[in-house]
Amino acid sequence: MAKKVLIVYAHESPASFNAAAKDAAVAALTAQGCTVEVSDLYAMKFKAAATTEDITGGVKDAENFCYAKELKLASEEGRLADDIKKEQEKLKEADLVIFQFPMYWSSVPAIMKGWMDRVLGFAYAQEKRYSEGIFKDKKAMLSFTTDCPESVYSDTGINGDINVALWPLQNGILNYCGFQVFAPQIFWDPATGSPESRSSMLEGWRTRLQNLCGEAPVYFAPLDYFDKEKCFLLKPEVKEKYASEECGLTVGIHMGKPLPANSQTKAGV
Amino acid sequence: MAKKVLIVYAHESPASFNAAAKDAAVAALTAQGCTVEVSDLYAMKFKAAATTEDITGGVKDAENFCYAKELKLASEEGRLADDIKKEQEKLKEADLVIFQFPMYWSSVPAIMKGWMDRVLGFAYAQEKRYSEGIFKDKKAMLSFTTDCPESVYSDTGINGDINVALWPLQNGILNYCGFQVFAPQIFWDPATGSPESRSSMLEGWRTRLQNLCGEAPVYFAPLDYFDKEKCFLLKPEVKEKYASEECGLTVGIHMGKPLPANSQTKAGV
Repeated sequence: MAKKVLIVYAHESPASFNAAAKDAAVAALTAQGCTVEVSDLYAMKFKAAATTEDITGGVKDAENFCYAKELKLASEEGRLADDIKKEQEKLKEADLVIFQFPMYWSSVPAIMKGWMDRVLGFAYAQEKRYSEGIFKDKKAMLSFTTDCPESVYSDTGINGDINVALWPLQNGILNYCGFQVFAPQIFWDPATGSPESRSSMLEGWRTRLQNLCGEAPVYFAPLDYFDKEKCFLLKPEVKEKYASEECGLTVGIHMGKPLPANSQTKAGV
Repeated sequence: MAKKVLIVYAHESPASFNAAAKDAAVAALTAQGCTVEVSDLYAMKFKAAATTEDITGGVKDAENFCYAKELKLASEEGRLADDIKKEQEKLKEADLVIFQFPMYWSSVPAIMKGWMDRVLGFAYAQEKRYSEGIFKDKKAMLSFTTDCPESVYSDTGINGDINVALWPLQNGILNYCGFQVFAPQIFWDPATGSPESRSSMLEGWRTRLQNLCGEAPVYFAPLDYFDKEKCFLLKPEVKEKYASEECGLTVGIHMGKPLPANSQTKAGV
């Protein structure tokens, strides 16, 4: 069955490496028979700030306004701004979502954070999160450029372990919504390299895309490891099971142990 | 000497807990003789997206547009959009910067990420980063609300260790620019608590503000621990010095060891 792919893309310049990476994905996935849709956030002048204007027909509690709660309610009642609705429709259709962006300050650019803040508001409930999340049958991944070499983002490098830097995005957003998260595609400092190194990076990406959907996702702890009666802490039997393991479960749920190496950047670790 | 404080504030509703936390800080710091300026991002309708419009007089390399490089150059040449210039002036004046926000998706709201993406572009150079950063004589801190209790963000909680979640913001942005980072002020789930618990949280914040500037900052590895000739990896003598330590240096520079407990949330750990 042909897959539907949504690429959420955040670069202004059509001549950028990010544009080339996006175009490579569109071409490779289309050639496989996928239907690919691109949300080109800058071209769309996508509104980044999460505001009361995102909710039509008035907010319920203006006195103590809580964006997340209001957005969820408005979503259930069909009272969301049109641009959010459109993105949610694309998202509901998609089997795979690729976020393509230049890393800004160890995270996504504000315009992409705005997409996440505004569009994903409907995508969870207390017991529909993580491995039981609303998007558990969908895949998602980050694909991004950096402006520094890989070693700088290592556990002895000045910016620290990239696995830690990516945790809030990959666990806190993608995994939270239930997505099975493919290992990120990281283009290390393409701007500094030669044209040949850039071509070679893109070639690697094209090759990976051939079998992307056959990849194992990154490992996260499943929802049933946590006790819903006890503030979603790890169940005692799970703690016991992993007590003798050398490493923690994941980067964030590390249980005071060393982090599992590359658990956020390699498939199935 | 009276201090200058900048509060970068991101909540739309004047009746919100975030507004109350901001107001408490303004009052407490003003009472100490500080001059407090507030950048109320929603009220200012602060532009979140980093775009070529941020640079006046044309970009240098439209073909291969790199926002960070262009912003830095434009900053040196005085060719930045007025709203960025204004924020940079406030920042240059400030001795202390407080970021007050509701946590959205384990990070700052997009409008605040936009402030960081657009305003901080001038605030570093290859050898003026981290402990040698441009703002090394300034302090900064995160002050935010969550929509879940503290245990959820622990190293056995479902969202994972808050120290990990905060690393990209506190290390990758604040420490990167040189700020001495005060431990974050975290208001755990004020929306769910009673009016009394909210009052008590604010009272705790007021009390903390009495001696905020006397606090020790959060620990980060100093710039001279890294070898600038070797991609800013930890120097061998530093690795050796810490080889027998039980924990890594910091959350991100963990050297494959357990993370130092609460090193991002408690002073001087």
